[in-house]
Amino acid sequence: MDKIIKTALIQMPISSDIEQNKRELSKQIEQAAKQSAQLIVLSELHNTPYFCQTEDVRNFDLAEAIPGPSTAYYSALAAKYKVVLITSLFERRAPGLYHNTAVVFDTDGSIAGKYRKMHIPDDPAYYEKFYFTPGDLGFTPINTSLGKIGLLVCWDQWYPEAARLMALAGAEILIYPTAIGWESTDTEDEKRRQQDAWVTVQRGHAVANGLPVVTVNRVGHEPDPSGATNGIAFWGHSFVAGPQGELLFVASDSEAQTAVVDVNISRSENVRRWWPFLRDRRIDDYHNIIKRFND
Amino acid sequence: MDKIIKTALIQMPISSDIEQNKRELSKQIEQAAKQSAQLIVLSELHNTPYFCQTEDVRNFDLAEAIPGPSTAYYSALAAKYKVVLITSLFERRAPGLYHNTAVVFDTDGSIAGKYRKMHIPDDPAYYEKFYFTPGDLGFTPINTSLGKIGLLVCWDQWYPEAARLMALAGAEILIYPTAIGWESTDTEDEKRRQQDAWVTVQRGHAVANGLPVVTVNRVGHEPDPSGATNGIAFWGHSFVAGPQGELLFVASDSEAQTAVVDVNISRSENVRRWWPFLRDRRIDDYHNIIKRFND
Repeated sequence: MDKIIKTALIQMPISSDIEQNKRELSKQIEQAAKQSAQLIVLSELHNTPYFCQTEDVRNFDLAEAIPGPSTAYYSALAAKYKVVLITSLFERRAPGLYHNTAVVFDTDGSIAGKYRKMHIPDDPAYYEKFYFTPGDLGFTPINTSLGKIGLLVCWDQWYPEAARLMALAGAEILIYPTAIGWESTDTEDEKRRQQDAWVTVQRGHAVANGLPVVTVNRVGHEPDPSGATNGIAFWGHSFVAGPQGELLFVASDSEAQTAVVDVNISRSENVRRWWPFLRDRRIDDYHNIIKRFND
Repeated sequence: MDKIIKTALIQMPISSDIEQNKRELSKQIEQAAKQSAQLIVLSELHNTPYFCQTEDVRNFDLAEAIPGPSTAYYSALAAKYKVVLITSLFERRAPGLYHNTAVVFDTDGSIAGKYRKMHIPDDPAYYEKFYFTPGDLGFTPINTSLGKIGLLVCWDQWYPEAARLMALAGAEILIYPTAIGWESTDTEDEKRRQQDAWVTVQRGHAVANGLPVVTVNRVGHEPDPSGATNGIAFWGHSFVAGPQGELLFVASDSEAQTAVVDVNISRSENVRRWWPFLRDRRIDDYHNIIKRFND
């Protein structure tokens, strides 16, 4: 019998009121659970505005220990609704040592595992290298009662290596909480190319690894506190792709949306039988991948 | 000033008459040159029908030494039209040792380099493991007067590792001669998913590496000599994608087509400045990629 996971994507605009964001997330989690969701995925750093638009030491006050108050909050929700819940938190590991950390709760509210974002971007308005120490937990899937979850975060989505390493370690599904959007001065054509590239590269991970991909983005405009830019228009467009890269669901580019999508985990094995890419990898000649550049 | 390469894709049905195929290719090369093509790409194993539909030792008679009669033929065409020409030949290296080898000719007709297909498929009607010894020249771009060409062949296109290794070795463009098609018993939905997956994973390589991708497929139906299947309907759909994965050209799914497309090589550096993926690779934690499976 096919193993189907009812997977909820919660795409939300995030306000500057942290408690209000958490309450709204709680409401949406309840909604998803009422629709029989078994796995619920939130977007990246969902508790707070995307504070990385500027470099400001006061923003480190937003970080919390793991476990800490936020894990207690989401643990209770996972247990209450008996769901596997994927959250994304700003982790305070030690004074001066912070991570962008996704935490997975199992259906009993326990922490199934965490993933510290490995690839850290740094672009105008995405000053993440200032805030986040690169992850040191590696590309390790998280065991849950629903299966092995290959959890990655945002910038990781541009790296085929990350998806492949999760697949090689036995992940049954790839999940990307993310926060990505448009800058107002880009042309419409350029905006389209960016969003298409973002969808395409992740669908490519699904194809190359014969795994479903679930990506949840935030949505809506957030101003730049420094006034240096016009802020970020987070482009929503959360989506689910099957193991042939086929799109199973795509959310709105501009609206809040909570959707529950059937993800058939068993299909991956059939797809991998037809397209046995893992069989033919030339591991005898991949060693240069661990070089910065082969010059 | 931007560096533009006028790139020709020759998408053709291949008959059982080898001399006729070569004459037709010569005509199409002439057509492309008349349209100012500087780089001309042929499809995989373009001299002959796709003989891998069955396992038959007599087909080894189709193989040739490199250099040999076919390289002499294509060398003369490259020199005559002063083009860089990408060919794909069945190489006889020694008795009992054969490769699926792409050969690049420079504008003076000299052999700029060759690439022996590294990833070898084996599926019903694609019995390539019987014919082709896996390549032993690695993932090495070929230097030409037009730039460094990351030449890969067909099944390689499903492997992000191959594209990445070419990019890390300085390739300025990725080129895939290919021969892929539909089996008649698949549903229309399944056919669509297969072709979409094939385009998507390669556009993903363009995105992940900030490089243009040129893929040339054969087109038209070829019967299965064994009668075991209804043969292969090669799906054409040759295409060019830019360094954000944006589609610049897509050929017909069913018709012969010779097209010349402007490929702006300089755009890659701009795209890589906006999306500096190479900067943030976690080479300290990619070592498991050279494992078969991480169990």
